[in-house]
Amino acid sequence: MKIGVFKIPQSSPDDLTALDDLVINQILDPAHIVAILGKTEGNGCVNDFTRGFAVQTLKSYLAAKTNSTIAANMIYVMSGGTEGVLSPHLTVFTRQDSQPNEPQRWGLVLGKHHTRDFLLEEIGTLTMVKEVAAGVEAAIAQANLVPQDVHFVQIKCPLITAHSRSGLDSVQSAKIQDSYKSMAYSRGASALGVAVALGELSLTQINPDEICHNYLLYSNTASTSAGVELRNCEILVLGNASHSTSDFIIGHSVMQHALDVDAVQAAIANTGQPPENIVNLFAKAEADPTGVILGRRHTMLDDSDVSHTRMARAVVGAVVASAIQDPMVYVSGGSEHQGPPGGGPVAAIAYSGHAG
Amino acid sequence: MKIGVFKIPQSSPDDLTALDDLVINQILDPAHIVAILGKTEGNGCVNDFTRGFAVQTLKSYLAAKTNSTIAANMIYVMSGGTEGVLSPHLTVFTRQDSQPNEPQRWGLVLGKHHTRDFLLEEIGTLTMVKEVAAGVEAAIAQANLVPQDVHFVQIKCPLITAHSRSGLDSVQSAKIQDSYKSMAYSRGASALGVAVALGELSLTQINPDEICHNYLLYSNTASTSAGVELRNCEILVLGNASHSTSDFIIGHSVMQHALDVDAVQAAIANTGQPPENIVNLFAKAEADPTGVILGRRHTMLDDSDVSHTRMARAVVGAVVASAIQDPMVYVSGGSEHQGPPGGGPVAAIAYSGHAG
Amino acid sequence: MKIGVFKIPQSSPDDLTALDDLVINQILDPAHIVAILGKTEGNGCVNDFTRGFAVQTLKSYLAAKTNSTIAANMIYVMSGGTEGVLSPHLTVFTRQDSQPNEPQRWGLVLGKHHTRDFLLEEIGTLTMVKEVAAGVEAAIAQANLVPQDVHFVQIKCPLITAHSRSGLDSVQSAKIQDSYKSMAYSRGASALGVAVALGELSLTQINPDEICHNYLLYSNTASTSAGVELRNCEILVLGNASHSTSDFIIGHSVMQHALDVDAVQAAIANTGQPPENIVNLFAKAEADPTGVILGRRHTMLDDSDVSHTRMARAVVGAVVASAIQDPMVYVSGGSEHQGPPGGGPVAAIAYSGHAG
Amino acid sequence: MKIGVFKIPQSSPDDLTALDDLVINQILDPAHIVAILGKTEGNGCVNDFTRGFAVQTLKSYLAAKTNSTIAANMIYVMSGGTEGVLSPHLTVFTRQDSQPNEPQRWGLVLGKHHTRDFLLEEIGTLTMVKEVAAGVEAAIAQANLVPQDVHFVQIKCPLITAHSRSGLDSVQSAKIQDSYKSMAYSRGASALGVAVALGELSLTQINPDEICHNYLLYSNTASTSAGVELRNCEILVLGNASHSTSDFIIGHSVMQHALDVDAVQAAIANTGQPPENIVNLFAKAEADPTGVILGRRHTMLDDSDVSHTRMARAVVGAVVASAIQDPMVYVSGGSEHQGPPGGGPVAAIAYSGHAG
Repeated sequence: MKIGVFKIPQSSPDDLTALDDLVINQILDPAHIVAILGKTEGNGCVNDFTRGFAVQTLKSYLAAKTNSTIAANMIYVMSGGTEGVLSPHLTVFTRQDSQPNEPQRWGLVLGKHHTRDFLLEEIGTLTMVKEVAAGVEAAIAQANLVPQDVHFVQIKCPLITAHSRSGLDSVQSAKIQDSYKSMAYSRGASALGVAVALGELSLTQINPDEICHNYLLYSNTASTSAGVELRNCEILVLGNASHSTSDFIIGHSVMQHALDVDAVQAAIANTGQPPENIVNLFAKAEADPTGVILGRRHTMLDDSDVSHTRMARAVVGAVVASAIQDPMVYVSGGSEHQGPPGGGPVAAIAYSGHAG
Repeated sequence: MKIGVFKIPQSSPDDLTALDDLVINQILDPAHIVAILGKTEGNGCVNDFTRGFAVQTLKSYLAAKTNSTIAANMIYVMSGGTEGVLSPHLTVFTRQDSQPNEPQRWGLVLGKHHTRDFLLEEIGTLTMVKEVAAGVEAAIAQANLVPQDVHFVQIKCPLITAHSRSGLDSVQSAKIQDSYKSMAYSRGASALGVAVALGELSLTQINPDEICHNYLLYSNTASTSAGVELRNCEILVLGNASHSTSDFIIGHSVMQHALDVDAVQAAIANTGQPPENIVNLFAKAEADPTGVILGRRHTMLDDSDVSHTRMARAVVGAVVASAIQDPMVYVSGGSEHQGPPGGGPVAAIAYSGHAG
Repeated sequence: MKIGVFKIPQSSPDDLTALDDLVINQILDPAHIVAILGKTEGNGCVNDFTRGFAVQTLKSYLAAKTNSTIAANMIYVMSGGTEGVLSPHLTVFTRQDSQPNEPQRWGLVLGKHHTRDFLLEEIGTLTMVKEVAAGVEAAIAQANLVPQDVHFVQIKCPLITAHSRSGLDSVQSAKIQDSYKSMAYSRGASALGVAVALGELSLTQINPDEICHNYLLYSNTASTSAGVELRNCEILVLGNASHSTSDFIIGHSVMQHALDVDAVQAAIANTGQPPENIVNLFAKAEADPTGVILGRRHTMLDDSDVSHTRMARAVVGAVVASAIQDPMVYVSGGSEHQGPPGGGPVAAIAYSGHAG
Repeated sequence: MKIGVFKIPQSSPDDLTALDDLVINQILDPAHIVAILGKTEGNGCVNDFTRGFAVQTLKSYLAAKTNSTIAANMIYVMSGGTEGVLSPHLTVFTRQDSQPNEPQRWGLVLGKHHTRDFLLEEIGTLTMVKEVAAGVEAAIAQANLVPQDVHFVQIKCPLITAHSRSGLDSVQSAKIQDSYKSMAYSRGASALGVAVALGELSLTQINPDEICHNYLLYSNTASTSAGVELRNCEILVLGNASHSTSDFIIGHSVMQHALDVDAVQAAIANTGQPPENIVNLFAKAEADPTGVILGRRHTMLDDSDVSHTRMARAVVGAVVASAIQDPMVYVSGGSEHQGPPGGGPVAAIAYSGHAG
């Protein structure tokens, strides 16, 4: 399996100029695209339509370059929010069969899976955890990976808007009182699904009431992101394997708090490559739910003017970007059950290819 | 001259619990206070009343502990905005005469000055530059410092609200079209005043039209902060001198951009002390006015939901705090003519005392 | 009982210029002040320190003009948020004994009460409902009013910040997951306390689980406002009685939705005075929790950039202000259990005095 | 000429369900569409991508239902910002030739025009004024209207982002210092173009320096809206004429301030139809630039957390919607040179058809 990785800047959610350049110059074959992870410049919260706008634009472009079925089958994970220095961009993953004579070596492989659509009342429940776990297992199998070599699992999951909430029964509705909260439940249950699939947790360890309450239950590799533009979960699994013929390799670590630069350096080191070879970093950000970071009070949770997820992305974005002196990194907000409370997983993809 | 430095947490703008503890336990004598620099948890923009609230609370407390004249004579520089990890706190500077037998050594000294009140039409003009320059010179003389040993000049300056703008003539009013903009002009002219006083620039180099337009003119040590609660400028000059008997020492450097961790490390190194001895860091933050950081587009200037000064503080706050793994640092927004465009000065105060 | 009503503009939360003019000119005797209702220009949410700033300023001023005990005994209800056209101001209520020869007539009377401080875990519970109900009854008795002639009950109530939340046990903490939510619970329980005191509801009708869930339970006269600056509830009851010698009279009605101009007109008519005699209007505002107003979808609940309470105040403020063509009206956000869902009580105070 | 008017709700910027229903049921023939005015649920400021998203979705849908040339030729005016009660929707205008036997009567007619793309340095200048004036004249001629019977001229105009600003020379760049400001210049110059075309002002009356400075120069019928998604101006002229066979009629008035309900009633009355026949109202909103409304201070211009254009729309939206008890109205922000300072034009379209 030969995986390609392309980091592509965007000047707006509907800007595909740089992608189109790669396609026109035959550097990137759109038919090989498996997944696209993007950072778009909305607020990353409920009413962030930049995600849907970017996806609509990509699907329309890629359907024209390939066909509607192929384009619909790709995974689109647009994470809203480029607060602070974060720079809007796409990371495009391609997959093709290795050539018979290509040398195999320890390197990047991937698998993907689309779950079924979820009912509104399933979002944030144990049913969602199980469904996602099964999806992650399917993606791991597709990649021909072993769980311990998985370094990053990205999931795009649905949310509940004020409009759609009317369809909920009163019990679940009482639990998920607003759209913003529903994003957390969806991200949290999806992350726990990853933990189950990778053996970090067993299903029996997860009480339904602990979803989005007991944050000592978490995955070290899950990165989940909620959006208004989908009803199912889209799963992308990245890891290293010996059957790879990719020029890229992945590593990861876990940030214990928002300023954990050591963990960022550890993720880079985990690739076995020097910092200058890093193509992109993928991290989760969260305002520490205790209201305290490194023993000091922070004000993010009490700021009613700016969502704490926005500020958390600005902080972690600055820490991660400063490590490689490149603001074009992927930092996504809301890290419920993704790493320890106030922290989150961080993955690094490095170029490992040899000159030719 | 013996300068003391105390970093004191606040749980709200009117919380003086920790300060009062120091006073009650006779660790800090309120009569010795010369200046208080605080980070308060408002938006740091026009309608940030946390600054005034904190100052009112401090003045009332200190007037009761000393008397109204002494309390009114102190310098209060409250910088609004504790975005991201920044933790609300006060840095209290005390000054007392050295004891006859105290050993003098290279260390922290300070001087201060209050300018006259400015007319609305003077804010952001060459008149303000000159008046501030004279004030800085007075403060340097008071500290018995030489300009090249000045490491940090903090100024609190006034702004123009929508309400007060009616008092302006049409020409100046056209220039300063909104309150937010008036904050920039006030900070910019004050910073140029510092540059003139320190010989970084000569007055003849500054054309009135260049204030807040030609950002290649700047000071490497100025840190200026605008607030609705005052009409004059309050100036605090910090440097090192051989007549010091302080247990503290100051160093500084200049961040070339918002992710310039090397400059933060250089400021720490400039104190001659190890990172664990750092008491506080003082930095200026600004969203790069070109819309680009390290070659990547940022979205701060086009985000109409969150002021770019807020995001810039979150970013620089994260970078500075991560260097010493302490989020209780002083990062202030709006760095017009304070360091290069997109960057800003950073100063470090370290404990240099010997165990008794 | 002779009640005076003064509407006083403020140019900032700490501006008492106009109040001081009245005092200096002996139009208003500070010793007669019973309660002050203010609209201050913060965000009206968790981190709105303009309320505390205004109260601190008022208390300090009034303590100097009277004494600390008298000043501390007054009721201060600062409601944050002057979105849209709403204009920051104070409404000062004075009370003095009627002169023996003063003619009594149907008009304004008032009573007040301070409850005990609440424990964090009591906020938003049935205990709070009962305690508030008892306090309202005490205030009604003090005013020598009958419940059916009560037109407006204003309560200032406490909230829970991220910082203080650590003191909660896990059950209550799970219920009140964030500070913003705690404001709703505090307002809701206080409003239900009013309903119980006035016989609009009986205590047995209120199941603990219905607080902030079953909004069909509500009061038609309660107006409650949460703030970080107090731990107890401060209660002000306004009504009409025959033993009044006031030059003012009060009326009220209930807005069924945010655009219910007919209810505003009805409240004015209920005073028996023409619109030009209206001194102030007092209304509650809320974004309709169904996401729909008059059959049309609104976007306030899904807007992650601006709190829906802020937008609701802007809307109701415009509707109420347009009715009397005066933007200096009192509109307060968060109308849980205050009027029907999406609506709220509206009271009008009119001048009814005869020329001398 | 037979003009049709359809008001169509949207549940998101890319929701065309209700439009598609009309098309499927042959109530609306997409080939007859001339212009679509929409309110979308973004922030209405620089980084509002809901406008582009809605237009992209509409163009794609209409190209499929007609063809790309026809779809590209339609006018799309998406105005961002549905603050407060404003409900996202589209107003679709269709035009077809009258049937030979259709009775003509005084009623709605329309004309449209697309200007050429503007250079960045032309935005907000006299060149833009002239170009727009010529475009409005062309649209009036197309409608076979006389200027005095024009009731509403809607223009969508471009803006300058931080990214594109690098293309400007320093003089113009200094004038238009930020993207938000560029929106005002673009709207202002476009509105003055309307005033010139309708004879409300002559070109010689307009000094280049007065654009966005002397607001005593204004049009009573212009409504202009800036967006990142276009480079030219798209012009729609609406008026009444005797050659109409439309079932609709238009009227207008001018709001003198944000709470001018009388003007809203006058616009309704100007259609000659009762309020219940009103299909939609079209108004401009602006926070009074003096900082005062009806003699009272407002805080919109000093609120650094929420753009004043957002609050102004919430206010005027509430006033206009309350007049017809329907929140699905078109209120657009930024009324530079559109009506008097702090006010703006308001137009009403009513159904005037007779039962069959």
